[in-house]
Amino acid sequence: MPDKVFRIARAARSPRRPVMLAVAGDSASGKTTLTAGLVQALGPDRCTSVCVDDYHRFDRRERANSPFTALHPDANHLDIMEQHLQLLATGQPILKPVYDHETGELTRPQLVEPNDFIIVEGLLPLYTKLARACFEVTVYLNPPEPIRRGWKVRRDIAQRGYTEQRVLDELDRCAADSAEFVRPQQRHADIVVRFAPIATRQDPPGTPLSAELMLRPTVPHPDLQAVLVPTENKAIHLKLERDPDGRPCDALHVHGYVPVEESRTVQQAIWSATNQFGDPPPCLGRLTLSRRSEPMAITQLLLMHHLLHAHH
Amino acid sequence: MPDKVFRIARAARSPRRPVMLAVAGDSASGKTTLTAGLVQALGPDRCTSVCVDDYHRFDRRERANSPFTALHPDANHLDIMEQHLQLLATGQPILKPVYDHETGELTRPQLVEPNDFIIVEGLLPLYTKLARACFEVTVYLNPPEPIRRGWKVRRDIAQRGYTEQRVLDELDRCAADSAEFVRPQQRHADIVVRFAPIATRQDPPGTPLSAELMLRPTVPHPDLQAVLVPTENKAIHLKLERDPDGRPCDALHVHGYVPVEESRTVQQAIWSATNQFGDPPPCLGRLTLSRRSEPMAITQLLLMHHLLHAHH
Repeated sequence: MPDKVFRIARAARSPRRPVMLAVAGDSASGKTTLTAGLVQALGPDRCTSVCVDDYHRFDRRERANSPFTALHPDANHLDIMEQHLQLLATGQPILKPVYDHETGELTRPQLVEPNDFIIVEGLLPLYTKLARACFEVTVYLNPPEPIRRGWKVRRDIAQRGYTEQRVLDELDRCAADSAEFVRPQQRHADIVVRFAPIATRQDPPGTPLSAELMLRPTVPHPDLQAVLVPTENKAIHLKLERDPDGRPCDALHVHGYVPVEESRTVQQAIWSATNQFGDPPPCLGRLTLSRRSEPMAITQLLLMHHLLHAHH
Repeated sequence: MPDKVFRIARAARSPRRPVMLAVAGDSASGKTTLTAGLVQALGPDRCTSVCVDDYHRFDRRERANSPFTALHPDANHLDIMEQHLQLLATGQPILKPVYDHETGELTRPQLVEPNDFIIVEGLLPLYTKLARACFEVTVYLNPPEPIRRGWKVRRDIAQRGYTEQRVLDELDRCAADSAEFVRPQQRHADIVVRFAPIATRQDPPGTPLSAELMLRPTVPHPDLQAVLVPTENKAIHLKLERDPDGRPCDALHVHGYVPVEESRTVQQAIWSATNQFGDPPPCLGRLTLSRRSEPMAITQLLLMHHLLHAHH
């Protein structure tokens, strides 16, 4: 009696439909840092973040006997991930599976209820067409491999207690699946973000990484031509380019050495273009308790623009 | 972009919609016995059974500090149960939570995929209107309380290693919630089944229980007036009655002492009325490896009739 189901479901509920952002990228590509700043800026009471790397079909013990790495789509319940993204996008709660990174076991699932904003981060949130259709805006984080490997080694040693050799072995083991399944998702992202040093410069050690943002015209970006004044903005500029498939896009460069004042002026302009009063949230751009990055702040602010824009 | 979601979902899938049966009833009311025979008769490759007592919001430790028994609707993710029933009814897989009765912990969820037939048994599958709308046919098992208490004591001692006193204490603790939330579901069932001794007779010990089936005209039952010949059927008979709310229904009585030949003739007639060739499946009516019940066989056969009828 499925027709009856739909009729009653429609009548019984007028669910709150969240604005959804996907943050995709390989392991240790910066997803959590980007997401944490956005959750803080939007407020944890209005914004929920969900990691979709918990939809593993196998636990660690089972995976040891399987030909798949955890990155392989067949090693994950992608159909259930897709279903849960649809449920969230249509304002329904989900009971999300939970993978315990410490023990490698699948454990008690967790209730996730709709909220004004839901940020979905993980390895494969953009893998299927139906999953992608759930998002208002999608981001892929694409740091150069040597940078990402360094981040992963540092994080897994500090947070998961691994040895450096174990992390390097895992990186090698996952390389093929990463190239085949994770990285191709960047072609589906509205924004591809690359944090990297500038190849042509010899910046002193400690200079924050620059950001190169590929902005595809698949979502309405704020008018950056109006925001960026070529005579005043030297460390932040916009260029018309082609993406790797030859399709036109904007490339926004934010140099790591950008003076704070220049960055703030641009941020203030984007914030005004988002129809928000006052200053942009000061938590944007925070990397650790003591380190800030202006390129990260501008990246997060652009995403806030999309989220707030879609919410209204 | 929820409209886009629905458009793509519709285009991408033409799911197989299972025929769904609910078997509701209090703890140890006979749900598993009834269900197991049906799964075996329909074939485990075509019929999946799902227990919805796993949607506990709290594990045993948390429940110890909560004012709820496990029977209370608020102690369960009934909204998620409802959602999962809808998903199954519309041919989608679910990742079903799992409660480990031994440890009292919520553990790794389990993938349940659509099948031709899905039997959903548990304490509260008929609690909400939307849940009820997912079923082609619904049953409530309503044995007299002293009978059910005896079954529960015997089962929980044998299968869960409890002491008799612990089971009796639990029965007392749950009595109020059972009366308030579980038992009222019988008014929503298409069929209410009461296995009980016949009060007016003094059958010798070991006589199987009789079955009294209240058949509500909410689903098209087989024409039992055509099947039951009053001159030949003395231990199986049909009576026009009123349910406790005063609504008309049929009452089918199958006496525990019914001779096997009489029972078989009636079963054969129901089986033919279901447009099936040959004999009804011999596993129907099995209580244990060595005990059979003709009233149980006829109850299960009536349910098979509804399932096969809805499947065609």
